[in-house]
Amino acid sequence: MSRPLVRVPLAGVVAGEVGLPPRASHYLAHVHRLGPGDRFVAFDPQAETEAEAEIIAVTRRGGSAHVRLGPPRPASLRPARRVTLIQALGRGSKVDAVVRDATELGATCIAPVLSARSVGGTRADRSGRLRRIAVEAARQCGRGDAPLIEPTAPLPEALRRHAPSAGSGLGLCLHPRAATPLGAALRELRSEGEVVLVVGPEGGLTDEELGLGASLRYRAVSLGPLVLRSETVCAAALGALLAWGAAR
Amino acid sequence: MSRPLVRVPLAGVVAGEVGLPPRASHYLAHVHRLGPGDRFVAFDPQAETEAEAEIIAVTRRGGSAHVRLGPPRPASLRPARRVTLIQALGRGSKVDAVVRDATELGATCIAPVLSARSVGGTRADRSGRLRRIAVEAARQCGRGDAPLIEPTAPLPEALRRHAPSAGSGLGLCLHPRAATPLGAALRELRSEGEVVLVVGPEGGLTDEELGLGASLRYRAVSLGPLVLRSETVCAAALGALLAWGAAR
Repeated sequence: MSRPLVRVPLAGVVAGEVGLPPRASHYLAHVHRLGPGDRFVAFDPQAETEAEAEIIAVTRRGGSAHVRLGPPRPASLRPARRVTLIQALGRGSKVDAVVRDATELGATCIAPVLSARSVGGTRADRSGRLRRIAVEAARQCGRGDAPLIEPTAPLPEALRRHAPSAGSGLGLCLHPRAATPLGAALRELRSEGEVVLVVGPEGGLTDEELGLGASLRYRAVSLGPLVLRSETVCAAALGALLAWGAAR
Repeated sequence: MSRPLVRVPLAGVVAGEVGLPPRASHYLAHVHRLGPGDRFVAFDPQAETEAEAEIIAVTRRGGSAHVRLGPPRPASLRPARRVTLIQALGRGSKVDAVVRDATELGATCIAPVLSARSVGGTRADRSGRLRRIAVEAARQCGRGDAPLIEPTAPLPEALRRHAPSAGSGLGLCLHPRAATPLGAALRELRSEGEVVLVVGPEGGLTDEELGLGASLRYRAVSLGPLVLRSETVCAAALGALLAWGAAR
């Protein structure tokens, strides 16, 4: 198999000749050592489009690449299902790693939240930084879009905003003491149904938070009785969802 | 709910009074600031036993704790299924993180291997270090055993050693271009059946390696067309397996 083409994120993919911004130019000319005549793929994660492209010229220091873009088409690899991850921040939850994992594993929206046990760590809104991490992860795994990163909000606000409506979608709070196994809840998943996963910080969700979730139609589900780290829960639950969806 | 008792790994859990080794003593007296009268749980990951225990005395600098162990019992939380992870080493595969994730997610054996594309990184056998990481992860998540860590070996050797026998168990090579989704293969899983997961390094398994796997009854399965990092594949596949198993 031939090597897949290098992918470069670009805001606004339109057919024609264009000078790339410094970051994209550096990536092509220095990281991958591509030059005039070499081909790559430009993708616009926000518009979910991509286009084949060719380098025409690179300035001496590689600071700027002049390229020709072909006609844009819908991105070929996008998640089949809408999946929102509500992830509580905390000392133990390495949110950068969570955003990378969740992007690879098909989350379409990530809502960083502050919960009752979100102790330690920064409370500043880091959604700008997380957006860049998501676009970079999308580039690396070949995904043609990137998850929407919401601004950091209190958990109750995010629970209300993403609450599943009656009869459609599935809202799931991951909790080691929940009686329902994740797999049992996934049995009710419809082929196109949206899923909202809620993952607590180190120390977990409080009974009050689980209660608020229950009143908003979220179900508490478990990946077993062991106490998993926040980032492990995210990857394991999204992996189960991916495998489940593809099996139908 | 009361706070769960602190857990300390100990080689050989036998009822009676005993002086703890420095590492365990330090953990109780300094990390958790426990003293005479405080209770904890000692667990032996190798014997898969545990016992409630009480601190009798701590020497002045906390270098040695004298404790009383109750009668040992089988560890309460152990994986229900035998799951082996054959994980190829490589620059991109952070094997420490893989061992931590796999321990939390119920792997019972981890075989670090060198595959054709295991470039970069150290080729030295790090299984001693990985064993310590597995015991520490078991302690943190509350698991009463720890996965067996095999010495680093060439991939073909590990594939042969763990090959599923006809009619029992499931051997699965994770590969983004495989036609069978992981979820479809998991449909064939029996409730007590052993599973062997094979995860390639950055760059993936070669066609030759997949061919050798096929000749040994491993099936190539996919978590979708995106190119996932090695450590993401591990957590996602083990998560799917956990959810699947619990749903039956």
